[in-house]
Amino acid sequence: MLQLKTENAGVSPDEALQLLEAYTTHIKEVRATASYSDLESSINLPDDDALLGEVQKIAADKVGSKLKYNIVVGIGGSNLGTKAVYDALLGYRDLMEPERFPKLLFAETTDPEWLSALKRLLAPVTDPEEVLVTLISKSGGTTETMANFEILTEGLAAAFDIYDRVVAITDEGSKLWEAAGVHDMARLAIPSPVGGRYSVLSAVGLFPLLSVGIDIQRLRQGASRLLDQCFTARNIAASSAAILATQLERGAVINDNFFFHPELESAGKWYRQLMGESVGKEKSLDGEIVHTGITPTVSLGSTDLHSVGQLYLGGPKDKLTTFVSAGKPEGVAVPAQRLLPELTPMINGKTAADVMAAILEGVKIAYQKAGLPYMEVSLDAIDEESLGAFLQFKMLEMMYLGKLLNVNSFDQPSVEDYKIETKRLLES
Amino acid sequence: MLQLKTENAGVSPDEALQLLEAYTTHIKEVRATASYSDLESSINLPDDDALLGEVQKIAADKVGSKLKYNIVVGIGGSNLGTKAVYDALLGYRDLMEPERFPKLLFAETTDPEWLSALKRLLAPVTDPEEVLVTLISKSGGTTETMANFEILTEGLAAAFDIYDRVVAITDEGSKLWEAAGVHDMARLAIPSPVGGRYSVLSAVGLFPLLSVGIDIQRLRQGASRLLDQCFTARNIAASSAAILATQLERGAVINDNFFFHPELESAGKWYRQLMGESVGKEKSLDGEIVHTGITPTVSLGSTDLHSVGQLYLGGPKDKLTTFVSAGKPEGVAVPAQRLLPELTPMINGKTAADVMAAILEGVKIAYQKAGLPYMEVSLDAIDEESLGAFLQFKMLEMMYLGKLLNVNSFDQPSVEDYKIETKRLLES
Repeated sequence: MLQLKTENAGVSPDEALQLLEAYTTHIKEVRATASYSDLESSINLPDDDALLGEVQKIAADKVGSKLKYNIVVGIGGSNLGTKAVYDALLGYRDLMEPERFPKLLFAETTDPEWLSALKRLLAPVTDPEEVLVTLISKSGGTTETMANFEILTEGLAAAFDIYDRVVAITDEGSKLWEAAGVHDMARLAIPSPVGGRYSVLSAVGLFPLLSVGIDIQRLRQGASRLLDQCFTARNIAASSAAILATQLERGAVINDNFFFHPELESAGKWYRQLMGESVGKEKSLDGEIVHTGITPTVSLGSTDLHSVGQLYLGGPKDKLTTFVSAGKPEGVAVPAQRLLPELTPMINGKTAADVMAAILEGVKIAYQKAGLPYMEVSLDAIDEESLGAFLQFKMLEMMYLGKLLNVNSFDQPSVEDYKIETKRLLES
Repeated sequence: MLQLKTENAGVSPDEALQLLEAYTTHIKEVRATASYSDLESSINLPDDDALLGEVQKIAADKVGSKLKYNIVVGIGGSNLGTKAVYDALLGYRDLMEPERFPKLLFAETTDPEWLSALKRLLAPVTDPEEVLVTLISKSGGTTETMANFEILTEGLAAAFDIYDRVVAITDEGSKLWEAAGVHDMARLAIPSPVGGRYSVLSAVGLFPLLSVGIDIQRLRQGASRLLDQCFTARNIAASSAAILATQLERGAVINDNFFFHPELESAGKWYRQLMGESVGKEKSLDGEIVHTGITPTVSLGSTDLHSVGQLYLGGPKDKLTTFVSAGKPEGVAVPAQRLLPELTPMINGKTAADVMAAILEGVKIAYQKAGLPYMEVSLDAIDEESLGAFLQFKMLEMMYLGKLLNVNSFDQPSVEDYKIETKRLLES
């Protein structure tokens, strides 16, 4: 699980918290329904055992010991959550473990070179059991996703019955849902009110994660327990939202999410969408033009201290930082017999975790001295339970933040602006 | 090479350009010296043939046909430029080409899990020719770099003479330079006035890139030609800087660098450091407390349209966008025989490049309609020459931007704030 510390956030969340009491009551009522009839219904995913059963059933049918690659074809909310969990637990070491299977590969945008490389990798495959394609599109008609799917399956379709090796995940009743039925493809439904950025604990995330052996039950448990904690003890999601909103009023237009483990970079990218789409809005709930929002950024410690650290410590005071770190086992250490003992004697006898802990601590002290506000999120470990709690914490935080900023946390009307133009160009 | 279009930048750079004339004269004089005696001397790297010769000599000595992994141990300016070029040309497909060697692996921060995975990968290596370690630290005493070096070479040192498989790149006369001499390690010098974020065309970038077969002569040529163009024809570096400075005055506190090829993500991260460290400053050149700077962000098209596109199109108008795209060969296409022909018929017969081009064009139209300012950088191709030109364009731009913001583009005084605290903690 995880903890939130707010004593260096520069503001007390108390006043804003009172504004959220009525909304908390509403969200609790949504949870009590255990169904999918409200905007906030994604909070019911972690306790939905029927969903878990459906995912397990398809996995039992499609995932065998020969599986090498499950290619997740999806973009935005259709893959960012999956990638967050996969990269945190396995993906960060894929380059260094070429012989470990199965792996997830993520086909996001329609890049010619990337697709060509993937096609070359898949070209020798003749055993259908080695490959699975998870095709994810909530609407069922995402341009890049459909183009990627057709391009990368071309060679596979010649080698075996590819329809049998595709799992489609989409809204029940979408064109993709119907097409999957026509072609006898496996399919899993996304509950209609659950938008992409809130869908990681639906089949969207659960199926591909289960296919590579990640413990999705512990992921769900972490999320469920986080909700229990917020609704019965300290509501860290509401506190965090209140601090973000208050600091925005004071000029913190950027929320820098500073992860002190490179494995968590994709969790940062998932949060970027969650915050960017949820509260970056032209109009308020009252229909007024407000152009509000907070720009989320992702930094990695200690790497980015050697990159944007100067900007953060010396530059404009327009940021609220959220430091994210996790407990780690002792692990590797600087050996007693060093190759270059004459250099940096202060690392003698230190573990890698010691070095990172000292850097994080040094940075916090420097932020305090510079008067830079920050929150601290500490995960017990980088494991399924804490990751599930983290994802749920942030999704709940975003519902509260939308409420405080008086915007709809669940829609994304402005993205239509470019989609219409793109469609026109592709059809012309 | 590359082009810059500025007609949708919302401002004309003309007025600010006049302010930069004297500085251009100075930079040209620095170039005429062909030496390393000025803050701007990094512009002399691409024409330094002696440097090229030294890099080639070490490569001839250390890089053979058996090389599988060159592990670049460095952080910040010591590896971001190398990673920018490597990932653009080769690295983006490393996961899909497990059998292609040699590869670069980047040891940045001191992460226990990442280091453990790397040690497991290297454990079976007994042939010294298969591994090279490029140890890069300008100061010669970077904490993370030295810890990583000691931790990851521990196993290798038991298997063979590891000193012979290390190439140290550092300032001449640093403690690392001296230690390399004592232990008879290969070493390459970074010219003293060339800071990390301006060092990609020094041995810092050239050696590791050459070791994996990248054409560093064309990389240098691209940079050199870009300088020629800026100093004799249209000065796109000065124009871009002028637009950034003017838009900052108008409230564009964020510069979003929106790359329409995922291969260029690391180029974006390199630019994040370049801009963040160069102009994110507490004090002006006159010593006044100013807390100035622009926060650079990196977005990837089309992926991030499904993530932060809503924020960009609907949210606060606090950004100037730089779209970066490149010419691409026709490449893969949606096959005539589609698996799911009933979905998104508008992609029928389209290449992947067509789809991406339509999305980029659609986004530009949407930005225009929303009144969002942007510049466009177009690379002729993602190849060594255009990448060299891009890197040089941006490094020159940053010198001009510092001049316009009245800050020192070449120092990073605030990073000492956390380093002092970290050192104290490690020594206590």
